Amino acid sequence: MIIVLKPKVSDEGVESVISSLKQYNISFDISKGTDTTIIGLVGDTSALNRESVETNPFVERVMIVTEPFKKSNRKFHPQNTVIDVLGKKIGGTKLTIIAGPCSVESEDQICCIAENVKQSGATFLRGGAFKPRTSPYAFQGLEAEGIKLLIKAREKTGLPIVTEIMSTRLIENFEQDVDVIQIGARNMQNFDLLKEVGKTKKPILLKRGLSSTIEEWLMSAEYIMAGGNPNVILCERGIRTFETQTRNTLDISAIPVIKGLSHLPVIVDPSHATGSSKLVEPLAKAAVAAGADGVIIEVHNNPACALCDGPQSITPAVFDDIMKKIALYAKIEGRQI
Amino acid sequence: MIIVLKPKVSDEGVESVISSLKQYNISFDISKGTDTTIIGLVGDTSALNRESVETNPFVERVMIVTEPFKKSNRKFHPQNTVIDVLGKKIGGTKLTIIAGPCSVESEDQICCIAENVKQSGATFLRGGAFKPRTSPYAFQGLEAEGIKLLIKAREKTGLPIVTEIMSTRLIENFEQDVDVIQIGARNMQNFDLLKEVGKTKKPILLKRGLSSTIEEWLMSAEYIMAGGNPNVILCERGIRTFETQTRNTLDISAIPVIKGLSHLPVIVDPSHATGSSKLVEPLAKAAVAAGADGVIIEVHNNPACALCDGPQSITPAVFDDIMKKIALYAKIEGRQI
Amino acid sequence: MIIVLKPKVSDEGVESVISSLKQYNISFDISKGTDTTIIGLVGDTSALNRESVETNPFVERVMIVTEPFKKSNRKFHPQNTVIDVLGKKIGGTKLTIIAGPCSVESEDQICCIAENVKQSGATFLRGGAFKPRTSPYAFQGLEAEGIKLLIKAREKTGLPIVTEIMSTRLIENFEQDVDVIQIGARNMQNFDLLKEVGKTKKPILLKRGLSSTIEEWLMSAEYIMAGGNPNVILCERGIRTFETQTRNTLDISAIPVIKGLSHLPVIVDPSHATGSSKLVEPLAKAAVAAGADGVIIEVHNNPACALCDGPQSITPAVFDDIMKKIALYAKIEGRQI
Amino acid sequence: MIIVLKPKVSDEGVESVISSLKQYNISFDISKGTDTTIIGLVGDTSALNRESVETNPFVERVMIVTEPFKKSNRKFHPQNTVIDVLGKKIGGTKLTIIAGPCSVESEDQICCIAENVKQSGATFLRGGAFKPRTSPYAFQGLEAEGIKLLIKAREKTGLPIVTEIMSTRLIENFEQDVDVIQIGARNMQNFDLLKEVGKTKKPILLKRGLSSTIEEWLMSAEYIMAGGNPNVILCERGIRTFETQTRNTLDISAIPVIKGLSHLPVIVDPSHATGSSKLVEPLAKAAVAAGADGVIIEVHNNPACALCDGPQSITPAVFDDIMKKIALYAKIEGRQI
Repeated sequence: MIIVLKPKVSDEGVESVISSLKQYNISFDISKGTDTTIIGLVGDTSALNRESVETNPFVERVMIVTEPFKKSNRKFHPQNTVIDVLGKKIGGTKLTIIAGPCSVESEDQICCIAENVKQSGATFLRGGAFKPRTSPYAFQGLEAEGIKLLIKAREKTGLPIVTEIMSTRLIENFEQDVDVIQIGARNMQNFDLLKEVGKTKKPILLKRGLSSTIEEWLMSAEYIMAGGNPNVILCERGIRTFETQTRNTLDISAIPVIKGLSHLPVIVDPSHATGSSKLVEPLAKAAVAAGADGVIIEVHNNPACALCDGPQSITPAVFDDIMKKIALYAKIEGRQI
Repeated sequence: MIIVLKPKVSDEGVESVISSLKQYNISFDISKGTDTTIIGLVGDTSALNRESVETNPFVERVMIVTEPFKKSNRKFHPQNTVIDVLGKKIGGTKLTIIAGPCSVESEDQICCIAENVKQSGATFLRGGAFKPRTSPYAFQGLEAEGIKLLIKAREKTGLPIVTEIMSTRLIENFEQDVDVIQIGARNMQNFDLLKEVGKTKKPILLKRGLSSTIEEWLMSAEYIMAGGNPNVILCERGIRTFETQTRNTLDISAIPVIKGLSHLPVIVDPSHATGSSKLVEPLAKAAVAAGADGVIIEVHNNPACALCDGPQSITPAVFDDIMKKIALYAKIEGRQI
Repeated sequence: MIIVLKPKVSDEGVESVISSLKQYNISFDISKGTDTTIIGLVGDTSALNRESVETNPFVERVMIVTEPFKKSNRKFHPQNTVIDVLGKKIGGTKLTIIAGPCSVESEDQICCIAENVKQSGATFLRGGAFKPRTSPYAFQGLEAEGIKLLIKAREKTGLPIVTEIMSTRLIENFEQDVDVIQIGARNMQNFDLLKEVGKTKKPILLKRGLSSTIEEWLMSAEYIMAGGNPNVILCERGIRTFETQTRNTLDISAIPVIKGLSHLPVIVDPSHATGSSKLVEPLAKAAVAAGADGVIIEVHNNPACALCDGPQSITPAVFDDIMKKIALYAKIEGRQI
Repeated sequence: MIIVLKPKVSDEGVESVISSLKQYNISFDISKGTDTTIIGLVGDTSALNRESVETNPFVERVMIVTEPFKKSNRKFHPQNTVIDVLGKKIGGTKLTIIAGPCSVESEDQICCIAENVKQSGATFLRGGAFKPRTSPYAFQGLEAEGIKLLIKAREKTGLPIVTEIMSTRLIENFEQDVDVIQIGARNMQNFDLLKEVGKTKKPILLKRGLSSTIEEWLMSAEYIMAGGNPNVILCERGIRTFETQTRNTLDISAIPVIKGLSHLPVIVDPSHATGSSKLVEPLAKAAVAAGADGVIIEVHNNPACALCDGPQSITPAVFDDIMKKIALYAKIEGRQI
């Protein structure tokens, strides 16, 4: 931590800043410039409150030098995390392909899609049972019934299931029934929910919040990991910007940035990132090229009749086509589908 | 709802779009331009799924003409909502002044601040007991103990208390102990929590999400109101932008925009909007000038020792000063403190 | 300037960073933490290239401690700048009120509006002659003819005229004919234009770019001032965000932030900030409450027939009303219209 | 164009809106809903001013149905534009690879880099002579001398040269000396400059503005094309968002979106998009995967000594490596380097 003092602070001022921090077990390194004095704090500053320091009248600002995330930090855990889900690895050389409809609608629908996407190379089945909808008047998902249908699709295909949790009251059910628990973008900083899933050992697919910085996102992963659950998969799904041609703006740079900062696997959701089925293929390919560990894609047997998110869904035939191309891209990078 | 077809769609194309919507009880108005055909939908289109329509291959885009919020919409409820809390009115001509520390820290602290801010004109006491912190390693609040201390401060001063809820498991406690329940910015789209507070009758202070549009914010109010709780107070607290001089960017325009769209009261939080104590006064005054129904301000007896959010807190003396100025502004607009 | 080294850099690494900077006349203050070593640079670092330092393999990042703006910086020029234009002061206790139509359309129109706004208290007349339009097919302004009409309006009313320059080829004409030269938001970083107006002594109204930070804005003022022209007036006119209810988002905090950082006058444009005539009054009042030195407002005798920007224009009658209210607000702050 | 009237407008209101538009040669299609009446305008509405219509008291809003860009619109020009520069094609199956230093610094430097990048597969040489710098105190480029050095490098290598223009006064020189004229992000809406380069026949590399929408970007291309110059190459270089880990956020979706909307070639600048040399490779690969027609990459023989933008430059050796990988990606898409 570095404390930059206001211009022309006297020696007494410097002394008073330092004495206000005497209770911490740290030492101080004072650097007097022509205009500005800087105090470097040496030692463990984690107990120190940056904001309190900033209220000191002699202090101009406080700069944090070390990253606030620990367990998710690659510096302290250089190897990639690889998560095993029913024998399938997330974060290894094989890409993780998660596919399925926005909402589970019926047994026929989910089982038919599951079989189709499995054939094309998907290794996980996704499908919404509890749906976060902007409007209280919109379809909210089949809820518990949806989970049952997902389980049937898993029985038929062997694909592990990925679905979103919205309530802490359902954690036991999800722990028992679901293979990967998804935390949606709107709940990325629902700290109560993060703490609860941190108490389980289930793999957690943590979507990035619509306007969350990469650092905040890693801090939310940190909440889960600090609770004792190291199995976090990050999912970039587009951020909110001023551009209106796409629903969100896929932050493709986030993939290599996170690969540098953290050891956690990162996958990309090109369907939600853009809201447009035509953009799924180019963005899925770009994600693999940029180093993503996998993709999560909305596939619907009949997008025009989907109960939600039709425009961003693709058909199983289109999905099959995309998988073939992605396999070629993966190969260049020494990976497989 | 208006459906804009792709250029040069044939009559058969137009017919096929219409027949795909035959099951709804609506009529159609077709408008053929030189390039583009437009279908106007007449009747109740609320059951219709915009996104499904957009997947139709003849459709270029679908435009929503009517606003999706109903219960919070001023068109259907022209008078201002006025909410009564222990005899104090929110949304009337008298401004609502909510003040207190970021976190409840001790009985002395909260009671002392409560007495101070009451003297200066505050009508509600705020204080965090359960704190949403970006880092799991940061102070998380005194939790249940904090609520007890708030109750003590209420006993001493008579000020109704406002504090944030983060978990649905605490709703009964909050219903019993707290006068206005706050939903924080990060939980604005925690739909599970919104539904639950919608089942109570408690006034809900709904903070705007960091990157939520005004329409999404009103839709979150709609979740609470659709559940049966009409007592929603909106709180603008700054949105996330590229500017880094302030923690967030106060969207001052949101106040008159919401006053036009909705009948709900709107207050402003200048402390969180900027993260800087020096900006509290000018922004509080601007809020009143722009038509806000009140302000919520962080006040701490010793900001340099606050356990969180020190830099944005002001002292009781500064608060007193600001209140005097705000009273003058209010008077111009025919309001009082 | 502070150089933060990568974790665990050896003494040789530290030495190599320092020796790469030996050619500058600065001294070094080394602060070794448990993990991280920090080098404080003492002396004049202005010749040093931050980006080159960052490419050094031992360097994690470089932090700039001092602000890059000098001539516009309040630290080196504590008193407010007050600019005299034909006897009218900008930046003093009297508010600057600039009013007029988006575009000059005819002699009748501009003279009629000029007389109206003068009567209501405006001290400057604005009107576009050369118009920056997003589309090449839209009305581009009356150009040179527009300037002539503005001059006629000045002759009739005595109001100094404010109008936008878009081309360096017109600088001589503007110097001769115009009283305050406006640089539009889209040209805020047209450095060629900034340099040229910096060679004149004319007051320059520098609008903030749509997505420019406050620091970049001050750096553009710095371009003008470094050229020898100290007469810069800053104009906040809304920034680009995700919100769509308003055309832009007025950054009301920018006013007190700039008042802290700089000695230059700041005015607010509520018309362009929102694109809505209904929002002009509340935002103009908020601007005065937040400490602005004035406002610039679009007024048109017949907004429905304006050749551009109709929806954000107000009529002279509405303008008159707003002026009366603003006068009350100004009085509270010890200012006048 | 569609006019949505306010709720419950009477027949007289509808009639008055229509009669206000009688002077245009258009017909009207009225669609009365239960709440809202909509007027569809049939015919050529290009002369009609949307904003004037919106000031009509009966009008709620006006929706534009057709895209405002014409000459750059793929609907009216379905084939891809391919631009020939000294025998090299931009926009064909062969990728365009533009490489070189941020700034031209010396004859040795530019010629050495040019020979290196040519060897690795670059087909164009870039290098800044006139530099747009945020600070007036920063190095502004070698200016005219820089252009001379670029010409020498072209003589030695045969690579056409790409460099930025900042002033209309230099257009004749650039027309004579430079092969592709770059318009920088900060000048994307410098309409004076756009009009001037529109009068030449030179290929124009038009960078996207920091906060420009895709539509605004195409409208700036339209300015150039409307002037008579069809040779526009679009360059995505990152947009401004709240994220701070990268200098800007590369909008990878913009590539397929533009490929859908327009026939113009699109290239990507991964160096400026991120400001980080480590991110150049993943983003260059992602760009090719997403369908870009090429990339523009900063290469410097000694990034640590570059006079500007060091941290985002890569060495010729790294560039060579990236080219080999990009060639593999291009092959999958049926393209070559």
